[in-house]
Amino acid sequence: MVSPPAARWLRWPGAVAEARLAYGADYNPEQWPVEVWAEDVQAMQAAGVNIVSLGIFSWARIQPTPDAYDFSWLDDVMDLLHAGGIAVDLATATASPPPWLTARHPEILPVDRNGATVWPGSRQHWRPTSPVFREHALRLVRAMAERYATHPALAAWHVSNELGCHNAYDYSDDAARAFRTWLRARYSTLDRLNAAWGTAFWSQHYSDWEQILPPRLTAAQPNPTQQLDFKRFSSNALKDYLRAERDTLREITPDVPVTTNFMVMHGIKAMDYADWAGEVDFVSNDHYVHPGPQALDELSFSANLTGNLAPGPWFLMEHSTSAVNWQPVNVAKRPGELARDSLTHVAHGADAVCFFQWRQSVAGAEKYHSAMLPHAGRDSEVFRSVAELGRTLRELGPVAGTVRHAARAAIVFDWSSWWASEQDSHPTSRLDYRQEALDWYSAFLDLGVRVDVVPVNTPLDGYDVVVAPVLHLVPAALSERLTAYVAGGGHLVATYFSGIVDENDHIWPGGHPGALRDLTGIRIEEFGPLLDDQRVELDNGTTGTMWTDRIDITADGVEVLAWYKSGDHEGRPAITRRVTTTGSATYVSTRLGPVGLLPVLTEVLDAAAVRSELPAGIRGRVELAVRADRDTAFWFLINRTDEPVEVSEVTGDVIVGPADGRQLVLPPRAVAVLRRHAG
Amino acid sequence: MVSPPAARWLRWPGAVAEARLAYGADYNPEQWPVEVWAEDVQAMQAAGVNIVSLGIFSWARIQPTPDAYDFSWLDDVMDLLHAGGIAVDLATATASPPPWLTARHPEILPVDRNGATVWPGSRQHWRPTSPVFREHALRLVRAMAERYATHPALAAWHVSNELGCHNAYDYSDDAARAFRTWLRARYSTLDRLNAAWGTAFWSQHYSDWEQILPPRLTAAQPNPTQQLDFKRFSSNALKDYLRAERDTLREITPDVPVTTNFMVMHGIKAMDYADWAGEVDFVSNDHYVHPGPQALDELSFSANLTGNLAPGPWFLMEHSTSAVNWQPVNVAKRPGELARDSLTHVAHGADAVCFFQWRQSVAGAEKYHSAMLPHAGRDSEVFRSVAELGRTLRELGPVAGTVRHAARAAIVFDWSSWWASEQDSHPTSRLDYRQEALDWYSAFLDLGVRVDVVPVNTPLDGYDVVVAPVLHLVPAALSERLTAYVAGGGHLVATYFSGIVDENDHIWPGGHPGALRDLTGIRIEEFGPLLDDQRVELDNGTTGTMWTDRIDITADGVEVLAWYKSGDHEGRPAITRRVTTTGSATYVSTRLGPVGLLPVLTEVLDAAAVRSELPAGIRGRVELAVRADRDTAFWFLINRTDEPVEVSEVTGDVIVGPADGRQLVLPPRAVAVLRRHAG
Amino acid sequence: MVSPPAARWLRWPGAVAEARLAYGADYNPEQWPVEVWAEDVQAMQAAGVNIVSLGIFSWARIQPTPDAYDFSWLDDVMDLLHAGGIAVDLATATASPPPWLTARHPEILPVDRNGATVWPGSRQHWRPTSPVFREHALRLVRAMAERYATHPALAAWHVSNELGCHNAYDYSDDAARAFRTWLRARYSTLDRLNAAWGTAFWSQHYSDWEQILPPRLTAAQPNPTQQLDFKRFSSNALKDYLRAERDTLREITPDVPVTTNFMVMHGIKAMDYADWAGEVDFVSNDHYVHPGPQALDELSFSANLTGNLAPGPWFLMEHSTSAVNWQPVNVAKRPGELARDSLTHVAHGADAVCFFQWRQSVAGAEKYHSAMLPHAGRDSEVFRSVAELGRTLRELGPVAGTVRHAARAAIVFDWSSWWASEQDSHPTSRLDYRQEALDWYSAFLDLGVRVDVVPVNTPLDGYDVVVAPVLHLVPAALSERLTAYVAGGGHLVATYFSGIVDENDHIWPGGHPGALRDLTGIRIEEFGPLLDDQRVELDNGTTGTMWTDRIDITADGVEVLAWYKSGDHEGRPAITRRVTTTGSATYVSTRLGPVGLLPVLTEVLDAAAVRSELPAGIRGRVELAVRADRDTAFWFLINRTDEPVEVSEVTGDVIVGPADGRQLVLPPRAVAVLRRHAG
Repeated sequence: MVSPPAARWLRWPGAVAEARLAYGADYNPEQWPVEVWAEDVQAMQAAGVNIVSLGIFSWARIQPTPDAYDFSWLDDVMDLLHAGGIAVDLATATASPPPWLTARHPEILPVDRNGATVWPGSRQHWRPTSPVFREHALRLVRAMAERYATHPALAAWHVSNELGCHNAYDYSDDAARAFRTWLRARYSTLDRLNAAWGTAFWSQHYSDWEQILPPRLTAAQPNPTQQLDFKRFSSNALKDYLRAERDTLREITPDVPVTTNFMVMHGIKAMDYADWAGEVDFVSNDHYVHPGPQALDELSFSANLTGNLAPGPWFLMEHSTSAVNWQPVNVAKRPGELARDSLTHVAHGADAVCFFQWRQSVAGAEKYHSAMLPHAGRDSEVFRSVAELGRTLRELGPVAGTVRHAARAAIVFDWSSWWASEQDSHPTSRLDYRQEALDWYSAFLDLGVRVDVVPVNTPLDGYDVVVAPVLHLVPAALSERLTAYVAGGGHLVATYFSGIVDENDHIWPGGHPGALRDLTGIRIEEFGPLLDDQRVELDNGTTGTMWTDRIDITADGVEVLAWYKSGDHEGRPAITRRVTTTGSATYVSTRLGPVGLLPVLTEVLDAAAVRSELPAGIRGRVELAVRADRDTAFWFLINRTDEPVEVSEVTGDVIVGPADGRQLVLPPRAVAVLRRHAG
Repeated sequence: MVSPPAARWLRWPGAVAEARLAYGADYNPEQWPVEVWAEDVQAMQAAGVNIVSLGIFSWARIQPTPDAYDFSWLDDVMDLLHAGGIAVDLATATASPPPWLTARHPEILPVDRNGATVWPGSRQHWRPTSPVFREHALRLVRAMAERYATHPALAAWHVSNELGCHNAYDYSDDAARAFRTWLRARYSTLDRLNAAWGTAFWSQHYSDWEQILPPRLTAAQPNPTQQLDFKRFSSNALKDYLRAERDTLREITPDVPVTTNFMVMHGIKAMDYADWAGEVDFVSNDHYVHPGPQALDELSFSANLTGNLAPGPWFLMEHSTSAVNWQPVNVAKRPGELARDSLTHVAHGADAVCFFQWRQSVAGAEKYHSAMLPHAGRDSEVFRSVAELGRTLRELGPVAGTVRHAARAAIVFDWSSWWASEQDSHPTSRLDYRQEALDWYSAFLDLGVRVDVVPVNTPLDGYDVVVAPVLHLVPAALSERLTAYVAGGGHLVATYFSGIVDENDHIWPGGHPGALRDLTGIRIEEFGPLLDDQRVELDNGTTGTMWTDRIDITADGVEVLAWYKSGDHEGRPAITRRVTTTGSATYVSTRLGPVGLLPVLTEVLDAAAVRSELPAGIRGRVELAVRADRDTAFWFLINRTDEPVEVSEVTGDVIVGPADGRQLVLPPRAVAVLRRHAG
Repeated sequence: MVSPPAARWLRWPGAVAEARLAYGADYNPEQWPVEVWAEDVQAMQAAGVNIVSLGIFSWARIQPTPDAYDFSWLDDVMDLLHAGGIAVDLATATASPPPWLTARHPEILPVDRNGATVWPGSRQHWRPTSPVFREHALRLVRAMAERYATHPALAAWHVSNELGCHNAYDYSDDAARAFRTWLRARYSTLDRLNAAWGTAFWSQHYSDWEQILPPRLTAAQPNPTQQLDFKRFSSNALKDYLRAERDTLREITPDVPVTTNFMVMHGIKAMDYADWAGEVDFVSNDHYVHPGPQALDELSFSANLTGNLAPGPWFLMEHSTSAVNWQPVNVAKRPGELARDSLTHVAHGADAVCFFQWRQSVAGAEKYHSAMLPHAGRDSEVFRSVAELGRTLRELGPVAGTVRHAARAAIVFDWSSWWASEQDSHPTSRLDYRQEALDWYSAFLDLGVRVDVVPVNTPLDGYDVVVAPVLHLVPAALSERLTAYVAGGGHLVATYFSGIVDENDHIWPGGHPGALRDLTGIRIEEFGPLLDDQRVELDNGTTGTMWTDRIDITADGVEVLAWYKSGDHEGRPAITRRVTTTGSATYVSTRLGPVGLLPVLTEVLDAAAVRSELPAGIRGRVELAVRADRDTAFWFLINRTDEPVEVSEVTGDVIVGPADGRQLVLPPRAVAVLRRHAG
């Protein structure tokens, strides 16, 4: 029923007998005088910290000049931490090249789309494809690995940092060369590339590989397949770099697991983490909350997806105790949110809860980013909450090693469709792929029904319901998989702008939704995107925005779940469902938003006999997430509201929650965890 | 009464006896396998297509390498089309240089204002002034002309494509050199240039021609006359390029007419088509609708202006069957709009109705741009509407060769005033030249009075009423022409910010509206632009925004048509009219919008005894456009509303319209055409 | 009581016996034919003009080629003016390099943050740090000084023009070199620089001075101290340039005072004029009004601050008679505003009232900028108002030489805090330092209490109340000064985000407001910035936006002046006051706006026994500003409203104001001046 644990997890120092969750932060001792270090370890112990990530931005300190290494200070820190019982997730320290390197080799600096050089003075000012950068970085990785291979504090390797956060798209000549190499591997011949890119359009036929460029500044719209392939290439170039560091590490320390921190979160789009997940020994993630009505849902969505990128538990490498520093307005977390946010990640499979960063900086670009030990010091609400969370996580030790308990429903997430559906020159520039997926997720939460957010290549057979929001890019094989899924009794839901193009971003001809036309039994001649001030009414009482389709029903067995009551398609179907012997294929042709999706989602869940596991009284107000192993299930009950919620009719041992066992009342924004027998 | 037909029109293949309108599209067979071509010709015949534009983006296919031409495929297509009875408007294929050319000669790539190179990967990545580009392009033009000079399908030459759509402003060193050459020709001496540019200001005096640059990125506002001259130069540079292609073509095929597709439409400002129109054998235009309350009026306005750029019928080279792909939201056309939009162009003098494009692409940047044969195929509303339009156009054959029947009123349109009035460092940055002109046009439509939109150099004697919206740049000769017009009994209307500067963008001193001060009998010491949230009331019940003037009446015979009731100029004149013996000069000092203009326009029309030709009951709801030759007039009645309109009291043979001849009821968005005796 | 007069003031030509205010404009005769010059002098005399600034943009005219000077025309103008009794503030003419210089030396052109060259064609296209530019400019300065050293019209030297208006931030290699030199002088060692910049963060440790760059385009946020130091350096580089011109002038004409026109006004932030003021013989300022509800308050605020930059009267070098040309919408001044704006500057210590410019240009980028002699000519409201003002200023002759009469309250203004508080990566990007200061100023005006706006380094001992809005950057010495101020009985008010960082932009640890924590007796663990749609209620009936703090009271004697009634900090203090034996320290933790500040400001003023000098009936409607010398005080009563205001209970000789002496009724936007005995 549950997935097997990950093949590799932290190599805890010494013999740690009990199951434990990791707890800690990025630790940047180089920002502080030596005398603070001991104080840090003491405070870490007080907070329950048992792991830190070290050395992430230490390149300039470790290698102060091209020909010299200075490990002494790092040796001291490693020893000090180990003596304090704190394990180390040791960075390869390559995230930010030191000034001497860029001064000597300005050819490693990225170039933006307009041809402007990206200068040092911040971080990640390196071309992912630069051979010069790679040579210097791997030399450092090797030195780090050799130095600390046998250090008892070493629990894992942390490759670089947030790969691609700022340098995912580089338009330099290095990038051009690497892009051509990648294209040669993908297409073998120029004829195939010309066909895939549709270069017959606008006289773009390439007669030599050397003519091909990244999609730099152009006079009008660049070739869409060139753009899509450049996105694929760019994600792959960073993955390739990750592999290079990893291989160096494995060569020297084959027994130490290697990870890197992904950024599965709002606003990060350039890296296809489903494609990357197999390259690391365990998945790590960074997540930061964006304010807004769906902030918590987005956190849960991201954690859920992260937990489904690879089998086994994952590592929450960074999140924040309170405000960040890089949003237009950086709001502080309210009471309870620090713990709730952390535990929501645990609920979705995280076995490690770490923050950026341990001690809040007094200088540098992130000095206003909150930390475990804030500017205010140990005598502060933040530090007290941090220590309280440390105790909670210790109580949750038994959860360690269990994994997300699969739901009966899934939302399919696909980077290729994300990239392709939001390109320019489309029916509308307002389409937001991730928001549509999140809206469906919120609707599931509102109904109290658990759902897995899974990469598109995940086997779907086990799911009774599969929602595919804006599954825009559907190669033939995926179309066949979905058809087989419905034929096998599955209930599929697709939305507007799904099934439109193949892997080369070529239209499936004959009427939309091309690749899903037979499956859904409908045909769309024309899209009907809406202007910003337009909305359409449906006869189920909901309202559509942004998009409509002009639907014709072309097959038997297609029923209309909702009709357009206004707009250009008044009287035409808005939501259809093709029912097969055992399965169904539902199509939603407009943007309904989280609340507007409830009627259609309810119908689909009813048809699939998927029901909420929560008592009726708390559905919507409480998120349920379940982790389990063979014998035991852990129910995480997360109060989504700012009011107390009384939980009744849920049985189990309360291992986190109100002390008074008689009645479980979740305070605002609080989380309870119950131990139950696995179903 | 009516203008003479154009000197040159399509050279129809064979002996086409009957009068006919051309109908077709851009045809891009290189995007499709050979087997589709025959299918295409068959579908074209079914749709009534009789002409296509071919080869527009075929450079890379025709000349795959610097030293080789491949005409075989194009020969086949030409033959196939000819066999199918379809004429060809053959492009010179130079619109988009192939990758091999830009790889070999990156010095043809444009440079933007910030110094960034504009790279290939899209289209129009060439400097209009590049001698290298021109050499290669003209070599291709020559090859094309020689190859197809005698092909029977060849009906016209189509120079490049949408010249200047993306590369009108180039700031490269080539542009700098050509700019200097153009300036030497314009000013002869540096002293004259220094005087014209006012270089005494800000120490900009040039002592050598080589010091002069395009208006590249500057620290503060660039010299305004330099900017204005750069706009003139840039329009001229493209015209010069057009002439170069044309002359090559004429040398080889003197009997084949040459055209190029203008873009008289919302959002296109850089090319002075009034200046270009004399360079082509017949005018062609591309027009795309922008959504909004004045969308149809703007189409009519553009068609009207296009029809007045040169004598004789014109060629609608591109418009869309439904949605485009390059707007933020690309709305589909509603039922009836495809035909209505096409016929509105015909109503204003188009003898050819073509679309971009024949078959909707499945790849490339414009794959979501609608076409005659959409993704959905022949079994689609779009294709059925296309075929229906084909039949309608065949019925309209007798219209061919007739021309726009001149109205009694005109709106003057002037690229120089457009460019000059919207420059920076002006009283307001909110002024929208074309919108003000369009608002007057809408007011005429609302009153049911026909009006011609004419270039400023058009003889005005024939008009009873002339409206000059924001006629900002008024050289002495123009001032004299307008004075003579009013002296001759004409009724002139000018608006705010008219008559302000001479051809060098120098203020006419002594009080505004300098060049029109005597004519209007008013004097304005200061402009009174309004902040975005400000509005002023007039005592005629209308409301002004964006601009006001502080008007003093300085001559006898000036009456006040409306006074300011609020704002800083409360109690002062808002609209004045100087009445001469037979004519008048009206001045409108604020922005009133299409509805707010109705009272003043009514007064002016009454004074000039210009009345609507439509029955009172349908004025405003129906646009009337008239084409005529010596004997016959064709009345186009265009339903501007989304409701049916019952047309009575209009006599004539209904050649397009409801079959039931008893009563003419125009469906929503429909067009009827009546044949009448010429008045 | 009053400050001593400035050491140096205008060297009036001949023996000017009577006290006089200077009146005039920038005069640019090179834009006009010679025959206009005599006309100009005549009109100047009619207007009461007694001084003009000459030659500001004359470089190209004075030095038409590298090797030739042409002073003849300027000689003529100087003579003509002198003959007309008009003194000259003679520019060094270096503001805008001529085309021949930039053509020959393109290496003087600035480079923007993205690496784009800033080209000629406008003005100020020179790098402040360019040695080549400086060499050419100083050669011209020397030539000017030698030519006119003894000219009787020469009253002062006008260095360059609006230094830094467009070229304050240059990222060129020249700038990089100069930045390093400045940093070496500031930090001596790289270790100190690395510590100050916090380069341990993100691996930014510099091992060689040559590695250091200006904060050019980076991948993520640049180092904040690098940014702050670059702002300091850039202000200093311009100051250094100012000193270079000044020293050249002083060498040749030691008796002629030197000034340059500052831009203390809304929107100008890059130059630390408090740091510059000591470099000139008297301060000059340019000021332009921005439309909006606080437009007049901002003018008064700027004039007030200008008057406190240095002792003695100052020179209003530029303002406008009516509209400017560079705002999005350039509104004309309403009747009375021309005089009111001018006299408000005089009220705050200006002894010269000048405009840009004398005669409105008919060409060039500023032709729509109003002038003393407008396009409409002498027969115009503007010129009549100009002449009327000339008469008023003559009546105000006795004011000349008196200085601002110090108030009992001060608002502290600090460029370092301005720069530092608005950097990126902060709790909110919405903070507006100058607006918060202005809001306090408006509150003082609303209460009718005079206040001085003073640079932070001004001695505060004389003030009973000191308001320090967003005094963000507080080095230890400043903290000590403020502590001593309160200990000495002063009443200090600080706001949110004050006292946060030291001079290196490092956080004062231990809880905010670090450097003011002891003084205020409060401690803030976390900032609570508000989203744009959030607001919080206070129990004193006011509303906070943009910012809140989570305040804990940590000392005795702290009282709460207002509590949060809503929001995350409901029930916590919003405004606190620590009362010492004689003084107090008030802290305001949210943005209240000008009206919302009234209750707290009233409380503070009451505690300090600071009362309005105005009768109750006119407080808020009239601004009072006072100039004085030993014996006499001049009360300027400025009507802030658009209604007449009846002034009673104010005694004194009305030297400017309604002719009828019985009762003083200020027309809308009018100013009266009363002579009284000095208190």
